[in-house]
Amino acid sequence: MNYLLLISYDGTDFSGWQQQPGKRTVQGVLEDAAEALFGAKRVTASGRTDAGVHALGQVVQFAAETKVPPEKLAACFNRLLPPDVRALASEAAPGGFDVTRAAKKKTYCYRAYYAETELPLYARYAARLKLRPDLSAMRKASGLLIGRHDFAAFRSSGATSKTSEREIYAVSVEEVKERHAAVYTVTVTGNGFLYNMVRILAGELFAVGCGKEEGITRAFLTGARGELAKTMPPQGLFLVNVDYGAPLFGAKEETHGIF
Amino acid sequence: MNYLLLISYDGTDFSGWQQQPGKRTVQGVLEDAAEALFGAKRVTASGRTDAGVHALGQVVQFAAETKVPPEKLAACFNRLLPPDVRALASEAAPGGFDVTRAAKKKTYCYRAYYAETELPLYARYAARLKLRPDLSAMRKASGLLIGRHDFAAFRSSGATSKTSEREIYAVSVEEVKERHAAVYTVTVTGNGFLYNMVRILAGELFAVGCGKEEGITRAFLTGARGELAKTMPPQGLFLVNVDYGAPLFGAKEETHGIF
Repeated sequence: MNYLLLISYDGTDFSGWQQQPGKRTVQGVLEDAAEALFGAKRVTASGRTDAGVHALGQVVQFAAETKVPPEKLAACFNRLLPPDVRALASEAAPGGFDVTRAAKKKTYCYRAYYAETELPLYARYAARLKLRPDLSAMRKASGLLIGRHDFAAFRSSGATSKTSEREIYAVSVEEVKERHAAVYTVTVTGNGFLYNMVRILAGELFAVGCGKEEGITRAFLTGARGELAKTMPPQGLFLVNVDYGAPLFGAKEETHGIF
Repeated sequence: MNYLLLISYDGTDFSGWQQQPGKRTVQGVLEDAAEALFGAKRVTASGRTDAGVHALGQVVQFAAETKVPPEKLAACFNRLLPPDVRALASEAAPGGFDVTRAAKKKTYCYRAYYAETELPLYARYAARLKLRPDLSAMRKASGLLIGRHDFAAFRSSGATSKTSEREIYAVSVEEVKERHAAVYTVTVTGNGFLYNMVRILAGELFAVGCGKEEGITRAFLTGARGELAKTMPPQGLFLVNVDYGAPLFGAKEETHGIF
């Protein structure tokens, strides 16, 4: 029988999702727990996240023979998982379900803050901007990303996807003025993302907001990574949600705020 | 010459503000930096914070002989301080200024989240509530705190203040519904706070929100700690601002959001 878990993790102390010998990875700690609980060997995810990247709502799958009711499996995992990974919900997977291929849309957010000094209470979950970006310039540039495009320029070397065509359904840029900082959140929903794509597109939007000439139009034409600004660091990136086109884990309330 | 620094710290890895032999404290790392920079021996604060408590805007004072312009001192400190403490601004202190006695008002906030499971991305800066509190019950009870009262029941044993009379100017309770959690922020401004007072009053408000009979009225009458709910843990508490009745560190923009 196949099961699904909705999981959240703080990526700070992980070498990313994917199992690697001698490294602490999210897949590694989940597979250790799955093996101890059910003798299950393999836990697969909707997709990888890189070292230092966080997840509010990653979806993972594993096969097991167990009499535990599906909705109780999350609590079983939580008794064995370290505190920086938690299973929020569990259920039986639909027949023939493939958690990677079945993902229809993913939403990521990238958080950054502008302040004159690094702020200790922001540093773990956001990147620092040394200039204050112009929100309307960022929003104008973000509109260019919407739609189906060849995002070849928006991936780091080392990417392995066969095609670099992706569709972006929505991009938003929000600013919240706090006491000692202005906090910017770029939220992007698409049918899939290339290696480092969200960190590159967020970097380009922040750079445009800080006065760099917009490079998106030329990046689509030339496919050259060099048209775009630098990749943002991992600690500002959150996998927010994976949408399978059908409700998983019950319905959620309307939400506000960044998460 | 006396100088003031506006500082922020992530309290997670500190044994509180106050210098203690063999412990890592905020005062300790600031005094190490002050001594290395100026041979200054002593750094005092508007008040102590406990182990694990954070500060968005603590104010500290030190004496030094230096030709560095006052507004550049923050950057001098930041070259020596560890990343979990930062000086946000610096200036010369008014003549005869005492950073502890001159503090007129302080604002703290206490953050907690309700979710069915511990959430890794909330755990560092908020306490978890196992029941969902009723916001209107919390707000109703919070109104009882406003004004000048004897807060004897609102302090932990070990408190050393001579008097337990304090004045609370404002209390607010805010709720933000996020994807997997409801986040509650209690913000309180007063002329001073007893040992653990904010953590005790926040604990009482959350408990009342979760159905406990309101104990504030009897606590004022009897002065007994036992009338009130348990002390909240430190990771949800933030010293937000210290008000000296005169502008320090330049004017700040109007702010929104929790910080």
